[in-house]
Amino acid sequence: MQRILVGAGLPEEAARQAAEVLLDAEISGVESHGLMRLAGYVDRISNGLIESRPDIRIETRDAVATVDGGNGLGQVVAHRAAEVCGDLARRYGIGVVTVRNSNHFGTAAYYSRLLSKQGCIGFSASLAGPTMAPFGGMDLLLGTNPFSVAFPAKDMIFCADMATSAAAKGKIRIYDQKGLELPKGWALDQNGFDTTDPKEAINGILLPMAGHKGYALAMVVDTLCGLLSGAALSGESSPMFQNDRNANTGHFFGAIHIDHFLPEREFADRARTWFAKLQNSRPRPGGPRVMIPGQPEDERRAASDGSIRILDQTLQVLKRYESIYANTSGELS
Amino acid sequence: MQRILVGAGLPEEAARQAAEVLLDAEISGVESHGLMRLAGYVDRISNGLIESRPDIRIETRDAVATVDGGNGLGQVVAHRAAEVCGDLARRYGIGVVTVRNSNHFGTAAYYSRLLSKQGCIGFSASLAGPTMAPFGGMDLLLGTNPFSVAFPAKDMIFCADMATSAAAKGKIRIYDQKGLELPKGWALDQNGFDTTDPKEAINGILLPMAGHKGYALAMVVDTLCGLLSGAALSGESSPMFQNDRNANTGHFFGAIHIDHFLPEREFADRARTWFAKLQNSRPRPGGPRVMIPGQPEDERRAASDGSIRILDQTLQVLKRYESIYANTSGELS
Repeated sequence: MQRILVGAGLPEEAARQAAEVLLDAEISGVESHGLMRLAGYVDRISNGLIESRPDIRIETRDAVATVDGGNGLGQVVAHRAAEVCGDLARRYGIGVVTVRNSNHFGTAAYYSRLLSKQGCIGFSASLAGPTMAPFGGMDLLLGTNPFSVAFPAKDMIFCADMATSAAAKGKIRIYDQKGLELPKGWALDQNGFDTTDPKEAINGILLPMAGHKGYALAMVVDTLCGLLSGAALSGESSPMFQNDRNANTGHFFGAIHIDHFLPEREFADRARTWFAKLQNSRPRPGGPRVMIPGQPEDERRAASDGSIRILDQTLQVLKRYESIYANTSGELS
Repeated sequence: MQRILVGAGLPEEAARQAAEVLLDAEISGVESHGLMRLAGYVDRISNGLIESRPDIRIETRDAVATVDGGNGLGQVVAHRAAEVCGDLARRYGIGVVTVRNSNHFGTAAYYSRLLSKQGCIGFSASLAGPTMAPFGGMDLLLGTNPFSVAFPAKDMIFCADMATSAAAKGKIRIYDQKGLELPKGWALDQNGFDTTDPKEAINGILLPMAGHKGYALAMVVDTLCGLLSGAALSGESSPMFQNDRNANTGHFFGAIHIDHFLPEREFADRARTWFAKLQNSRPRPGGPRVMIPGQPEDERRAASDGSIRILDQTLQVLKRYESIYANTSGELS
């Protein structure tokens, strides 16, 4: 992936950052944000819709900063913004950074975890193209608008990462592939009626998680990533793969420096004791074991033996892009 | 209410603040957090479980502060903390304040709205007693842990205020009074099985909103209000009306000063245009009109003509407390 991105014009370090975000998603089981995303990024770079060497501008004022991503790859812009956010948090106890003029940044979890590794409670969020209706409505005026919160707890990282829709579109595609019916409450058809047919849902309307609550959360993400930053609101933005104009995607990063409140070790010890109490609590009859947010992904990371299994289709695409961009005859391992 | 609270030992201004939070909840339609709460507060004050004149200690470090509420009434402690938070935000662009050793503070919305009136995106959250199980579990290790986000938009205030449980216990009580069945997914009975019987739910286990997502959000609220502040975690705290020990309730306040990012007027103009687009969008067939979070409460506030209707039972309790504490023979209007 790194070789392909360098071939497409990215500097070495930027290519490494982007590849790392995709790879981390893949090995933690979030394939929808993994290797299969690379081709779309490279297409947009080669079409001139994403800058391979963006002019990223950062304006800092007290404990906050605004970033103009110069229409760079989301992963590259977001790495810079998260770095600034961590620096502000260590200096002021809390830092906030908004980003405009960026692109799809991968998983929100990657950046909140990055901040957690610097002794912070990390927050990240991003806007997504319009696929969801407001509560009670049927017009596509909101995105799935994911956000993530992460913090360190000794040998673990708590990490919540959620779309504000009832289900992500990728999940609905999997139901379609498997020929399964959707649970009611995930989607509407194009005419605004409840549907359990994944095909109708894909061409239809996503519903917010938990009704009016998810609607409100999606609006909060739009406010932080869009209104505050000057980026496009989710209802205004072009879908990611609509290859005709800049996305002007907005992100938000926040970090609370734990040591400003109490020694991080004390915080982490208490968190870890609390986690154990939850993990050792009684599952409901027939229920799954109780886990901590981020634990399933951590377990998949730990189980990876240095190799990953990907769909043959994804491999073929990567090989094709390698032959075009990487100018090597080497095989992808 | 003010006279009763002063009679119970509160300073005039503290009594005014507490009464205002309860009254605002009542007139905006959140009766569960309105006048009916007063008696419980006064009982705890007279039992020595809440300090009527607390020693509130504030330690500020850079852009963050920690508050020891001195076991004061939550409304009084939270007013001070929110004030500090707004000051920090205006100075640094962002401010965060954690609170320990407090008590039930009323609605989270009151404080986020307070911050929004100072040109901020306001955040507030509080811990609540253990009534909810973790996702997949059946032990009462989490509270409903409400949080709120509010920001100004010209003639409107956006205000989301939500419990992280699928439904608040007060709502389930209303289903019980009306003899209605609960939707599946709100609660489990004491043995961990799904129940639609409100009586079983009241004695049973609340479920998080949106499954694992609400579980993660409840944990985030515990982290911000409990781990970071040194307050009791929701799984450790005593239920509000368990009159045998201090609650050590934790709160969290955050404020982002909009003018640090762009002129507030520009922010508010764009927000208002966006709101109008949502409000004027098509409702789904048979769906409610599309509203902005906070709008239903605003409409109730606007419709109030200076008088409120309360349950006769609540009025009788207030009259009784007035005769005990307020030392007047005047009638409540």
